[in-house]
Amino acid sequence: MLGGMQDWPLRIMRLLDHAEREHGFREIVSRWADGSTTRSDWAGVARDSRKLASALERLGIGRGDRVATLAMNHSRHLVAWYGTIGMGGIVHTLNPRLFTDQLVYIFNHAEDRVLLYDHAFRPLVEALRPNLKTVEHFVCFDPPDGDGFESLIASESGDYDWIEGDEREPAMLCYTSGTTGNPKGVLYEHRSTVIHAMAEIQPDVFDLSRRAVAMPIVPMFHAAAWGLPFAAPISGCKLVFTADYTPKTVCDVLRGEGVTHTAAVPTVWLGLMHYVEETGSDLGALRLVTIGGSAAPRAMIEFFQKRGVEVGHAWGMTEMSPVGTTSARPWNWDSMSFEEQIDLIAKQGRVPFGVEMRVVDDAGKVQPRDGASSGSLQVRGPWVIEQYFKEAEKAIDSEGWFDTGDVAVIHPDGTMQITDRAKDVIKSGGEWISSIELENAAMSCPGVAEAAAVGVCHPKWDERPLLLVVRKEGAEVTVEAIQEHLASHVAKWWLPDEILFVDSLPHTATGKLLKTALRDQYKDHKLTTA
Amino acid sequence: MLGGMQDWPLRIMRLLDHAEREHGFREIVSRWADGSTTRSDWAGVARDSRKLASALERLGIGRGDRVATLAMNHSRHLVAWYGTIGMGGIVHTLNPRLFTDQLVYIFNHAEDRVLLYDHAFRPLVEALRPNLKTVEHFVCFDPPDGDGFESLIASESGDYDWIEGDEREPAMLCYTSGTTGNPKGVLYEHRSTVIHAMAEIQPDVFDLSRRAVAMPIVPMFHAAAWGLPFAAPISGCKLVFTADYTPKTVCDVLRGEGVTHTAAVPTVWLGLMHYVEETGSDLGALRLVTIGGSAAPRAMIEFFQKRGVEVGHAWGMTEMSPVGTTSARPWNWDSMSFEEQIDLIAKQGRVPFGVEMRVVDDAGKVQPRDGASSGSLQVRGPWVIEQYFKEAEKAIDSEGWFDTGDVAVIHPDGTMQITDRAKDVIKSGGEWISSIELENAAMSCPGVAEAAAVGVCHPKWDERPLLLVVRKEGAEVTVEAIQEHLASHVAKWWLPDEILFVDSLPHTATGKLLKTALRDQYKDHKLTTA
Repeated sequence: MLGGMQDWPLRIMRLLDHAEREHGFREIVSRWADGSTTRSDWAGVARDSRKLASALERLGIGRGDRVATLAMNHSRHLVAWYGTIGMGGIVHTLNPRLFTDQLVYIFNHAEDRVLLYDHAFRPLVEALRPNLKTVEHFVCFDPPDGDGFESLIASESGDYDWIEGDEREPAMLCYTSGTTGNPKGVLYEHRSTVIHAMAEIQPDVFDLSRRAVAMPIVPMFHAAAWGLPFAAPISGCKLVFTADYTPKTVCDVLRGEGVTHTAAVPTVWLGLMHYVEETGSDLGALRLVTIGGSAAPRAMIEFFQKRGVEVGHAWGMTEMSPVGTTSARPWNWDSMSFEEQIDLIAKQGRVPFGVEMRVVDDAGKVQPRDGASSGSLQVRGPWVIEQYFKEAEKAIDSEGWFDTGDVAVIHPDGTMQITDRAKDVIKSGGEWISSIELENAAMSCPGVAEAAAVGVCHPKWDERPLLLVVRKEGAEVTVEAIQEHLASHVAKWWLPDEILFVDSLPHTATGKLLKTALRDQYKDHKLTTA
Repeated sequence: MLGGMQDWPLRIMRLLDHAEREHGFREIVSRWADGSTTRSDWAGVARDSRKLASALERLGIGRGDRVATLAMNHSRHLVAWYGTIGMGGIVHTLNPRLFTDQLVYIFNHAEDRVLLYDHAFRPLVEALRPNLKTVEHFVCFDPPDGDGFESLIASESGDYDWIEGDEREPAMLCYTSGTTGNPKGVLYEHRSTVIHAMAEIQPDVFDLSRRAVAMPIVPMFHAAAWGLPFAAPISGCKLVFTADYTPKTVCDVLRGEGVTHTAAVPTVWLGLMHYVEETGSDLGALRLVTIGGSAAPRAMIEFFQKRGVEVGHAWGMTEMSPVGTTSARPWNWDSMSFEEQIDLIAKQGRVPFGVEMRVVDDAGKVQPRDGASSGSLQVRGPWVIEQYFKEAEKAIDSEGWFDTGDVAVIHPDGTMQITDRAKDVIKSGGEWISSIELENAAMSCPGVAEAAAVGVCHPKWDERPLLLVVRKEGAEVTVEAIQEHLASHVAKWWLPDEILFVDSLPHTATGKLLKTALRDQYKDHKLTTA
């Protein structure tokens, strides 16, 4: 049919072009590991990105080549993202907290040709170097001797036209550090990234306007730092980075720069909460904290809500760019009691337009949204993975559904609540016991520092829960006290058949309980009830 | 390269699917012309849209066929949009205020096969009918006898799967009622509409969250009612319609339904302002009014700002889906004086991501963003027109720029300010005189009801301004008084060579000054200065 609208591909560089043109003087602040602070702006980031694009071409890097980073959050890391993508490359963020073997596997699997890294990770880079088969160029972002990233781009004119192309071209690579098997790469595309960024700035997700001052505390090596470096230029907000996560620094930067929006995992907020409570510090202009990565405890939500700071509880995964759900306030918020509000925010929230979500049982039957029928959580949408990098098989079923590996219920209002990881669920007599709920209930018992629930073989029930508990220092809490506490929090048939005290529990590099190791260790454990 | 994200076309029906699934019980309220009120919700709109899709297929309507509407705002009109688009048709809104000849031209040019219309427009429909060559089915939305829209869909089961297809397929047709030549059709596509809707809900445009209660007062036959019927389902907000625009009704509905967001042309606000001032009524929960269609007067902006209601001054056009710019508050808003704030909002605002904008001079040279260099305003982006319906030529240049026909300046902060329509600008001695600024200055003179400035041939200056003035009833304002008033508002060389008092000025069907008629009428006028 004759007539129509323009062909305007959703390319990532148009985000930066927009910020440069319309919000060029809005600040980008970096608080570096050495305690110094530098200030750039969107125009400066765009200029330096063009310089980096030229410099990468000078090094012989070409379209589709991978450029790796091992770095915390700062403006040069942001420039590395846009500069690489701008010259047609694929920026690949690596998590420096992973084990060395995993990192070596990831570098070689991704075939990275350049590595840009923070001085703080030099020892790690030196340890990795002999095993990296494809990396030709090592560039330090912040070398003490001055010969690094800034030298690389210094001689470039900044006169560079971004590589254009199809919006379905890849732009970024992030590996997921699963608890089993080799890490897998998720290849973000221009289109998926731009649509995700457009969705993120809406009021019910990150609520980013040009008035916002956003600080992504979540490290840029985690799931594209939840999309904030791509969403920020759409809104033209000010961006604040800190490479130092000590609570005092975070609090000082947050207050000093007038941060209104920030995003981090619960562990960081935990440190900040203690610091604020100890020092009596205030939270400055903070208005919205987004908490994700793992479930936000109720006490944390209450802490912020009581201080007039809205909490956006988010759930997502690397395979989802990463936003899946956020717990924005519903239309009847003001008519809810404080307890009801906390109850709601403690769940994982609702999908934005662009995420389709459902829960299915073991037979693949879609479950009702009744807040009770749990099952495998599945998603699909324009920013959801189709296929892992270099994997021969698709990661989705024939109808496009991606199985998240989480077990969840969906409430009648559309609020999703994670009840467990699929592989961690304890299957007792055909029913599911949530290991996460058991652990949370145990951790609310005085004297308990940490707890892990694993399913152990049982002759009658298939599996029954074993609870491993780390006592708080000096605490004398007993098995009986914990059982009594649990009895008032979970169904009777959920109560663990046995509770064992241990000195410590194993964790993954990103701080999650390493359930696979625990299941291995206790797989032959004979329960006292068996 | 192996791997990547999902193929998930940006189809309009996914907006409604989202609202049905995630916000199904959020209300859609219609205040009808007869004074009655009906209540539906997103689930109801989705159900009825499926029924209409089936019914249209039953009538023999097929993919790409045009379904016309002549209607005000109500839930059945909304169903008409989604139902038509859902079965692969193209919904075509017509402006009942156009002249009959124009409407006949548009119907026949669009080759509409169905016409859905309000009972209030039955006389118009009867007058048009003999001349409509392609319309086979006439269906009344709200017939007094009951045999109309509801009867058409009543027997359908609602069991219907939306037609899928490429995201670049057309979905909607709107004609622009230019002041010269035949109206031209703009053919919106699924993709352009969805991207535009996603951009609209952001905080700096319509700021739509699930807590919002939005009332598009702008009629749905105007430029897709500024995109609100497509943006609302993304946010899951409540939608309120009124088919009656009398200030009392608008005010009652606004307060009664708890409307927080609304959008209308200045004329409607003018009526509302007077009503509020006369009756002492309050504005209920109103938080953001978007004013567009033509420039918002300062007094109007002050009226709302003083009552704590934010004003979003918007500029756009049918060819832009229609949002071009909005005047959201900048980051330094709180440090501005009230006067500075009003000055800023009185300009047309800034582009969201997705609109590229520039000003060029007659030679096509891009002008600096200095707030002074005026020229032709050009735009491009994913929701900007490429080609009018059935026109052989593209509407854009080789680089994708669409010339808006407006004359504007862009300020250093990116704020755009319309200074004139290109064809209305008065070219005096190689310099441009803004007819709009002259008119605004004249209309701020006590005793002046309306004013029109047109360029009239001048032997020395090429053109010089002639000012036509309609006095307020009973006012005795003189030529001298107006000249004196103007002298303190515009440059000396802008002062009109002559001022004539007239009884009335001609207007287009949409209420704009009909400058072409005036230019025709006065083209041989001999200026006293010539």
